Amino acid sequence: MANTDSVKVRVLSLNCWGIRYLSKQCPQRYAMIGDMLCKEEHDIVLLQEVWSEKDYLSLKKKLVCSHPHSHYFKSGVIGSGLAIFSIHRIHDTFLFRYSLNGYPYMAHHGDWFGGKAVGMAVLNIGSLTANVYVTHLHAEYCRDKDSYLPHRVVQAWELQQFIRHTSAGADMVILGGDLNMHPEDLGNRLLRSYTGLQDAYLETAKFDGCEDGMTLIADNPFINKKELCPFEKGIRIDYILFKGSTKTDIYCDYMSTTKGSIPNHPFPYSDHEALTAGLRLETHTLTQSDRQPKIKDSAAGKLAALVDIVTEARTEVKVGLHCAEGMRYTATRTGVMGLALLVLELAIAAVPWLALGTEQPFPRTSFYLLAALCFAILLTTFMLYIFYTMELKALQGAEDQMRLAVGSLQEKLRGFPLAQPHNAPRRPPEGHEPSALAPEE
Amino acid sequence: MANTDSVKVRVLSLNCWGIRYLSKQCPQRYAMIGDMLCKEEHDIVLLQEVWSEKDYLSLKKKLVCSHPHSHYFKSGVIGSGLAIFSIHRIHDTFLFRYSLNGYPYMAHHGDWFGGKAVGMAVLNIGSLTANVYVTHLHAEYCRDKDSYLPHRVVQAWELQQFIRHTSAGADMVILGGDLNMHPEDLGNRLLRSYTGLQDAYLETAKFDGCEDGMTLIADNPFINKKELCPFEKGIRIDYILFKGSTKTDIYCDYMSTTKGSIPNHPFPYSDHEALTAGLRLETHTLTQSDRQPKIKDSAAGKLAALVDIVTEARTEVKVGLHCAEGMRYTATRTGVMGLALLVLELAIAAVPWLALGTEQPFPRTSFYLLAALCFAILLTTFMLYIFYTMELKALQGAEDQMRLAVGSLQEKLRGFPLAQPHNAPRRPPEGHEPSALAPEE
Repeated sequence: MANTDSVKVRVLSLNCWGIRYLSKQCPQRYAMIGDMLCKEEHDIVLLQEVWSEKDYLSLKKKLVCSHPHSHYFKSGVIGSGLAIFSIHRIHDTFLFRYSLNGYPYMAHHGDWFGGKAVGMAVLNIGSLTANVYVTHLHAEYCRDKDSYLPHRVVQAWELQQFIRHTSAGADMVILGGDLNMHPEDLGNRLLRSYTGLQDAYLETAKFDGCEDGMTLIADNPFINKKELCPFEKGIRIDYILFKGSTKTDIYCDYMSTTKGSIPNHPFPYSDHEALTAGLRLETHTLTQSDRQPKIKDSAAGKLAALVDIVTEARTEVKVGLHCAEGMRYTATRTGVMGLALLVLELAIAAVPWLALGTEQPFPRTSFYLLAALCFAILLTTFMLYIFYTMELKALQGAEDQMRLAVGSLQEKLRGFPLAQPHNAPRRPPEGHEPSALAPEE
Repeated sequence: MANTDSVKVRVLSLNCWGIRYLSKQCPQRYAMIGDMLCKEEHDIVLLQEVWSEKDYLSLKKKLVCSHPHSHYFKSGVIGSGLAIFSIHRIHDTFLFRYSLNGYPYMAHHGDWFGGKAVGMAVLNIGSLTANVYVTHLHAEYCRDKDSYLPHRVVQAWELQQFIRHTSAGADMVILGGDLNMHPEDLGNRLLRSYTGLQDAYLETAKFDGCEDGMTLIADNPFINKKELCPFEKGIRIDYILFKGSTKTDIYCDYMSTTKGSIPNHPFPYSDHEALTAGLRLETHTLTQSDRQPKIKDSAAGKLAALVDIVTEARTEVKVGLHCAEGMRYTATRTGVMGLALLVLELAIAAVPWLALGTEQPFPRTSFYLLAALCFAILLTTFMLYIFYTMELKALQGAEDQMRLAVGSLQEKLRGFPLAQPHNAPRRPPEGHEPSALAPEE
């Protein structure tokens, strides 16, 4: 190894809780956030829940000197809420919308309307290419009975796919955002082990912030303590993750979070804590020996662990599939009942016409009201049927991909010790001809 | 250059026109397609419009020996219709759903229900990694007054983004599918010039097939000749595109299309012609001099051309934005009128209640019918409003990305002759520090 070069990058991630007119002290908090960003001059700022484009534009105006480059990711009805500000030029952006994101009729949860997605920006930091990702996954409203779990697992699956497939050309990968998952939740393990991304909180040399790196804490005045239960002190659901490449090693020198209140200010920036990570990149010129996998011993174990995680995710998706099938069945049955009721009503009304002179048994008003009800049932169930069919297709698609992935990982495990380490699963070693006849299931 | 190795890959692409019970001779044609694929043993088969999963499964069963690996991409209400069959093992798949794809109320066109997308499969061919893409863009129903043009341009934009960002680690990229665009249409130019993909028909050493490589021809008995007008003989809208990498050069040795009828069969495989391309890959070990851009002279010209194309696309997206804004405005206005009508009706009906004893001016039936009409108007316009808002967000998002891309390309042009050739636009040459303070807009 020779020719070591070092680059430092400071990254901030913050869920801004920016629902205009609904979030408490929204304009004041945006003003505080703007001032802080202007002063702190982080290299990269990853914001979530910037729901209003107007708020993004006013931040952009304020940060024009400190962060001349920015991008706001538009998606869904309201928007994705995702924004990136950067000191370094943004060369390219790309948005991936998750195929599943809650239900439109759960309007009080509102996730569906947000058009959740992962945004990517390609930056050049010196001579290095950095792929920076910002995302916000579906919220968890009830941990014990989390009906959105399959959706969140599929989002984590798509997130790891997106990062893995789009980052092959990058020297450095940074992901920041509100993952709405605890550190050891299934989706989090899936994401970290498949992509090889490292958790800044776990890797940092120095940490200053909330206990256990928590980002949603009871000490924050905007937090309803009851909702945190049974995690009285708080939970860690916001993350900064990173990885290098074959050309670069990356280290986290320090990490910090806000602690529920900001000195000299009446309230915090948001209901979430802000995360800051100081990353250091070491570039090195590869010698032939560097190109060889260094962690061969543990690679087989990691592959086996990955197979277990994907299998667990597949099970979770199957649970979701089962639920969605049940819901679609209920919608169909209700629709058929609505149709039967309509036919029955028409039949009863038709009797007097057929047997002339008999008195009409239906008061007109009831007749029209009942018919309107039937039509409403038919329309609603038809729309629900369409929606559940789309949900089913998306879940089936993810399940298919997971099955394929497990097969491919197992194939690699069988080919061990020839296979490569877990963070480069796409390329088998040179000369290793995959068996074309292995059954795919 | 040394150590040249050669790999041959035969690729087929076919739009199967597989709408069960609606497409003519559907089961018979699938049987013919299955027999042909079984016999011909193409390395990679890219199918579109396989709308029914049952048809995919029966094909899979038939091809289990010739093409043991396959994947069906699920999306939308009906599905994406995309399927891949391969002789080589599929290691990984990924699906990207286009953010725009027609309108749900244009049910007779049906594109919206199809959930159009681009599917990717990662294959290992010998020691090489091949990224194979299959897609199907929104149909063109009326060339003169093509209201779907902005949607198709955004799809082409997202397609090039997806391919560009996911193919950095690939030694070879192959895209097959029904692009529903003529060779020199805006979306096609955007796709080819941004990704550096080459058109097999234009690059082939030997061609055997329809005049001008047409894939939708008047001689096909399933084609309504009137719909082809003014292109009497036919049009070329299906493509096989390819590119190599810094490690590989790729050539098209031959290409063929079916010619509207199949010898010894009563009808063709589909209303589209099937495309077959014989690709040859030459792997070489890079010497230092090979790594230098070879086409430096023309790179500036290509960059400038790309700026023009993206600008043209941006204009087209702006036209779409204008239309979508108009439609949303109309929906809002109609909704407001429905609401006003409802309020008026209630006011008139309320008069007799307020002035007791006055006779009710409304016959009950008319009252309920009118109220039902008002509610129907309100519901419909509300849903249209939601839909157009999502369309607007997607169009605005694409427009933002295009603006950023033009800025980045122009930046690169200013830095010339230091910049790299057009097919590697993401990485500036080493040591070229991009100006962090250049304005973004």
